[in-house]
Amino acid sequence: MTANPTLVEALRGSAVESTHRGAWAVVDADGDVVASAGDIDRPIFPRSAVKLLQALPLVESGAAERYGLNDEQLAIACASHNGEPRHVAVAASMLAAAGVDDAALECGAHWPYRDVVQREMAAAGRTPTALHNNCSGKHAGFVCLGCVLAGDADKRAFLSGYVKPEHPVMREVGDAIEATTGWRLADTPRGTDGCSIPTYAIPLRHLALAFARAGSGIGLREGRARAAKRLMAAVTAEPFMVAGSGRFDTRIIERLGERVFCKVGAEGVFCAAFPKAGLGVALKMDDGASRACEVVMAALIERFVRLDEAERGFVHAFADQPLVNWNGLDVGRLRWAA
Amino acid sequence: MTANPTLVEALRGSAVESTHRGAWAVVDADGDVVASAGDIDRPIFPRSAVKLLQALPLVESGAAERYGLNDEQLAIACASHNGEPRHVAVAASMLAAAGVDDAALECGAHWPYRDVVQREMAAAGRTPTALHNNCSGKHAGFVCLGCVLAGDADKRAFLSGYVKPEHPVMREVGDAIEATTGWRLADTPRGTDGCSIPTYAIPLRHLALAFARAGSGIGLREGRARAAKRLMAAVTAEPFMVAGSGRFDTRIIERLGERVFCKVGAEGVFCAAFPKAGLGVALKMDDGASRACEVVMAALIERFVRLDEAERGFVHAFADQPLVNWNGLDVGRLRWAA
Repeated sequence: MTANPTLVEALRGSAVESTHRGAWAVVDADGDVVASAGDIDRPIFPRSAVKLLQALPLVESGAAERYGLNDEQLAIACASHNGEPRHVAVAASMLAAAGVDDAALECGAHWPYRDVVQREMAAAGRTPTALHNNCSGKHAGFVCLGCVLAGDADKRAFLSGYVKPEHPVMREVGDAIEATTGWRLADTPRGTDGCSIPTYAIPLRHLALAFARAGSGIGLREGRARAAKRLMAAVTAEPFMVAGSGRFDTRIIERLGERVFCKVGAEGVFCAAFPKAGLGVALKMDDGASRACEVVMAALIERFVRLDEAERGFVHAFADQPLVNWNGLDVGRLRWAA
Repeated sequence: MTANPTLVEALRGSAVESTHRGAWAVVDADGDVVASAGDIDRPIFPRSAVKLLQALPLVESGAAERYGLNDEQLAIACASHNGEPRHVAVAASMLAAAGVDDAALECGAHWPYRDVVQREMAAAGRTPTALHNNCSGKHAGFVCLGCVLAGDADKRAFLSGYVKPEHPVMREVGDAIEATTGWRLADTPRGTDGCSIPTYAIPLRHLALAFARAGSGIGLREGRARAAKRLMAAVTAEPFMVAGSGRFDTRIIERLGERVFCKVGAEGVFCAAFPKAGLGVALKMDDGASRACEVVMAALIERFVRLDEAERGFVHAFADQPLVNWNGLDVGRLRWAA
């Protein structure tokens, strides 16, 4: 097996200190590979980078309409959020709309990702609940979907175990992933994600195809195409909800609007749709490094999205960024190496 | 350039999700390579992994004796600590012994590494000072050394800029690194470390040699050999001070005592002395991953240090460890891949 190429390098002074290898694919909605690097045919776990695909049944099933979900709520259904107060409130509001509360969430609790939020909570004497879990919006979406799928059955009884692969909620989610990626999930490695739902190994080529399809509607049945369009519009309208203060996804979508939908996943995965360009993107750092996958996504946005000069400068600052030490001194750079 | 081998793999379920490449060297005090993997001749920045070498002048100069530094204080001079209350108090006590305070520290301030300590401070309405910096003990040692080097000069004036390469304190530190590693610093890349002191690129082969020498005294002048022995004894006596609650270095040294001195550095570097085995060790993960460098160090301890069965189980649990999700479910493993 050939090693994937070095995509990102961290410099200290003028010397390369660390390097990050990986692979990426830029694909159109016909599945043609427009550009790529490294092995894009090895199945990888996309983790949270496919939350938009996982949220498709929430919309297509009619659950989003039934519960009157707005842009904020649909955006957080696709999010890995910071656990900031607005995120927590919006996730809670989805559960309330479906007539349940956070006891229905099966994602587990963790302290918010954002340190300053953690400290604010600690200062206020509070501890985290499942609503602070970065996946709480996605899970609130699963719960809303489950409440509709329950029909006349007892909601709480029906929802129990909704994270399991064989539960009707996860079967709907799996169907959406299979249909958009064109990759058979029954025959591929399956793992358990951080929030306890299944994650299926899928090649970058197929993940990129799914986002080209989601961004264009091409190759999807009508309801699914409409659902993808609705979810992307929601994220474009409320980019804070998909990540939060200071986060790459939020900052990029705030600035570039409907030209870019991007979503990070754990272990160095990133997926994106560039709808105006008709392209889907998927990348994975071999080592799982978050810092590196952001650099690569920025470099691909620079290369494949139409930007004006100011926007190019904004995006380039992520693709070649200073490393600063505890005294605020510039000590090196983290940059696209290709 | 051939890629370094994969040393660590992260599994999700039974599939490999991420991999970490790197290089390691195990060397005796004559400089003979006992075992190695990857490129051990490329200079790498050792960062905090050489804090013991950087603390040698503190002892050899007589400063440690002049200020009556005890085991706790000498151990924290070699530390990247958690910023726990005991760490902060001991670093402060070193400055007090030298007749200065934390205004003398030039390492910068940051919130403690350990989340729970951060939250405790926030709950108490406190903010971090330079004493909470993980390097504060090392810097307190530099300040003590500087106070002795100052002689009759004004201490505060003399200390100003002690982090700069040309300052007498850093010249002493550089001399100790050059003498122990046998690597000329004038001709090698130099960067600025997180705490603003210089870090010099040195091959793993030479870093391992330095620790074989530090652990045995072989190849060092008498005062330096004594200083190395004194510092290792201090860390063995007070392993909490070198890192802190839950940390690899602290837990390993607590359990294995004088058989292992190990010290992590930023960007996936680890150095160690196995004094009873007469060996020095140095490793660097290409991608800078901390999680991976601990796995490799554990695997090398398992292989090169004499352990009883219970100790072997203890160490092996670091070399092949479960990955657990937010619900506490086992979702994979992080393990030595070689």
